[in-house]
Amino acid sequence: MSGICRLLVTSRGEIAVRTIRAAKELGITVIAAHSDADAESLAVRLADESVNVGGAHAKKSYLNQEALLAAAKEVSADAIHPGYGFLSENAAFAKAVSDAGLIWVGPSSETIARMGHKAEAIATARAAGVPVVPGSEGLIQDVQEGLAAAAEVGYPVLIKAAAGGGGRGIRIARDEAELAAGIASAQQEAQAAFGDDGVYLERFVDRARHIEVQILGDGTEAVHFYERDCSLQRRRQKIWEEAPAAILDPEVRERICSSAVALAKSVNYSGAGTVEFLYDQDSAEFFFIEMNTRIQVEHPITEEICGVDLIRAMLLVAGGAPLPYRQDDIRVGGHAIEVRINAENPDNNFMPAPGTIESLEWPLGPGVRIDSMAFPGYTIPPFYDSLIGKLIVHAETREQALLRLRRALEEMQLVGPATTLPFFERLLGQDDVIDNNIHTTWIEQWMESQAS
Amino acid sequence: MSGICRLLVTSRGEIAVRTIRAAKELGITVIAAHSDADAESLAVRLADESVNVGGAHAKKSYLNQEALLAAAKEVSADAIHPGYGFLSENAAFAKAVSDAGLIWVGPSSETIARMGHKAEAIATARAAGVPVVPGSEGLIQDVQEGLAAAAEVGYPVLIKAAAGGGGRGIRIARDEAELAAGIASAQQEAQAAFGDDGVYLERFVDRARHIEVQILGDGTEAVHFYERDCSLQRRRQKIWEEAPAAILDPEVRERICSSAVALAKSVNYSGAGTVEFLYDQDSAEFFFIEMNTRIQVEHPITEEICGVDLIRAMLLVAGGAPLPYRQDDIRVGGHAIEVRINAENPDNNFMPAPGTIESLEWPLGPGVRIDSMAFPGYTIPPFYDSLIGKLIVHAETREQALLRLRRALEEMQLVGPATTLPFFERLLGQDDVIDNNIHTTWIEQWMESQAS
Repeated sequence: MSGICRLLVTSRGEIAVRTIRAAKELGITVIAAHSDADAESLAVRLADESVNVGGAHAKKSYLNQEALLAAAKEVSADAIHPGYGFLSENAAFAKAVSDAGLIWVGPSSETIARMGHKAEAIATARAAGVPVVPGSEGLIQDVQEGLAAAAEVGYPVLIKAAAGGGGRGIRIARDEAELAAGIASAQQEAQAAFGDDGVYLERFVDRARHIEVQILGDGTEAVHFYERDCSLQRRRQKIWEEAPAAILDPEVRERICSSAVALAKSVNYSGAGTVEFLYDQDSAEFFFIEMNTRIQVEHPITEEICGVDLIRAMLLVAGGAPLPYRQDDIRVGGHAIEVRINAENPDNNFMPAPGTIESLEWPLGPGVRIDSMAFPGYTIPPFYDSLIGKLIVHAETREQALLRLRRALEEMQLVGPATTLPFFERLLGQDDVIDNNIHTTWIEQWMESQAS
Repeated sequence: MSGICRLLVTSRGEIAVRTIRAAKELGITVIAAHSDADAESLAVRLADESVNVGGAHAKKSYLNQEALLAAAKEVSADAIHPGYGFLSENAAFAKAVSDAGLIWVGPSSETIARMGHKAEAIATARAAGVPVVPGSEGLIQDVQEGLAAAAEVGYPVLIKAAAGGGGRGIRIARDEAELAAGIASAQQEAQAAFGDDGVYLERFVDRARHIEVQILGDGTEAVHFYERDCSLQRRRQKIWEEAPAAILDPEVRERICSSAVALAKSVNYSGAGTVEFLYDQDSAEFFFIEMNTRIQVEHPITEEICGVDLIRAMLLVAGGAPLPYRQDDIRVGGHAIEVRINAENPDNNFMPAPGTIESLEWPLGPGVRIDSMAFPGYTIPPFYDSLIGKLIVHAETREQALLRLRRALEEMQLVGPATTLPFFERLLGQDDVIDNNIHTTWIEQWMESQAS
């Protein structure tokens, strides 16, 4: 059915397990590439074959391009699925895989490179007619220039130091008075901090939402699978995702999804990808941020509401098949929520908590899906990220999905390392979460308010 | 949300667990009625409260009307959900529950009684315009009368002894010659076997399918959730069910589903129910057999393809709410298959195999649902039926659902008593199953062909 016969899975953890399941259901022989530390993993158990690609540290194994290519040759693989993380958005590796005559399950190395370069990605989006965050054209010299630019950009604006970064050298101006007062002092501050007084303006989105659109292309055509709302983040890390974004009006939903497809088509996108947007819930405007040229952690909520299998679709398209879906066939049913189960201690500043799972009983029953590499007796290695699985619920409405999530969390029985599961039970007790009245820094603000 | 505050669940096993999950998601306080043997059950663990209703044997507990009513009073329940089996279709118990001022989560005792009486059910179906199995009007006296009746009924026909039963005293006639030859000898045989030579004719459906339609009513309106194909049976026990019935043409599907709704409306049906039909895959005719006035074991495949929660809907309707679904909102997406995990040894004539489950890891991931009361360390008691759970898969097509089922069965890890799981792996190796070329006695014929 697929043009792939022997697939090497070069990811680990839950996404390796997910990929192996999809490949097996397509009748593909699947080989798990694993590190020393993952020799006893569920991925290795579920795969048809496995191959050791190096030491425990990712640099020696999952990031080791030579070892992975050698392993592919050794096991006679004809394709590589990189999952997410590690080398999944590494254009050089994608090119090396193709150059070795193997199928890369993802977009071309050119597309990965182009969308991986922030300025080029934004230029590409703009050229495709996709809204980007409004800002001044170049640097602002004085207050007069600033006021003129801000009138175009729209308030509130951020005054950003050109030499800044990582959030440093940024101040906010909510009106002309604040802007007039801010520019000179921002320039002085930038000069002092970075030795460069260049500043520019960018629209500030208050109480922003992170909305992203799942797309799939075959190099010619592209379709979308509607959007996800990933605004519940802790330190810019998503921990709770929902689909669809209940906050969107149908008309906005249509435009944001069409934008994502237009961008994908403009680069002849092939494979699964996600177009990420900043969404202003006050003005209902959306702005392109970046594109992820790979499958994402939170893809299952899209699968649940659309009734599709995105990994299967990736494998089919990579194997040479045309898009397995037409846009008109893709419909949204119900509401899905995913929470990320990280082996971290929420009572100790989310410190990673590797260790052995002594016993484990997953919640089951209607509308509950578990994507995980955990099993009773599994020892979580300390070498990788702390994600050990995802609890996904699907129900007819957002309200029912929340109640189902609560029920599933209550059922869950895990004896072993600390996880983020109790944190989600606490979130379910918050009115803002129940009422969907959140934004990308809501969790930090809430945690601060609790600490004080 | 529901008009029910405190629900007593008087079933056991997986349907008790299923009911408890739905009730909890509605915010209902749920109390598990359990026997001595089920004191440590998952139902008891998941329920908010529990109450012992008697000894291990069902007669002393789950069939003990007085004990159940006393327990309902003791725990101040305002409603009873009977699940399936036991007293779920006992009109007297339904009446006693209502008479005690409690809500019976199911149709009225009158409807249960009416549809539980075979002749009355058939008369009700006929009055509602639902096709029933054609047969002679009354007894056949001689060959001439038989030939005339058979011309109306249509060949092949069964010559059935009026005093027979349980499959005894039945012979088949595929044409006039066979009928002419058969009537006299059937009469003689019946006289010898039952002391009564009365025989009558009934249409024989070769390679029959068992097709059933899920309905839900609120006493006024009724809707259907399309149909299930439950033709893979062993000794008339369903063991593998699918939804939708892939064999049906859209036009036939529409007619069979409308028939079920017409029947439900004609009796002002309230609650969930199933209208069962015999389907002739050669002529595309369907005939009413009976109606089950309760939830069925195989309801999850309907939930999967329609994206609904039938137990939740039962609780809402029983609590006084109108139908939570309009017919136009109910759409079919994909294909679902359920296999019944019985603690039986398929290598020893499906002998019940109670005992302790030493370890258990369910298959997980996309499109896999588990409804079960089993857990690691659970001891299956010998007092009840052998069903310990259901593995349900849902995928975009029947072909993909079969591949997903195979994948899930391979993943399943159960150490303990024998189960029917290996039997399903064998079924998945049969072309007739893959090609959907089966009927209600296919399994017996296949097993006989293997034994010889």
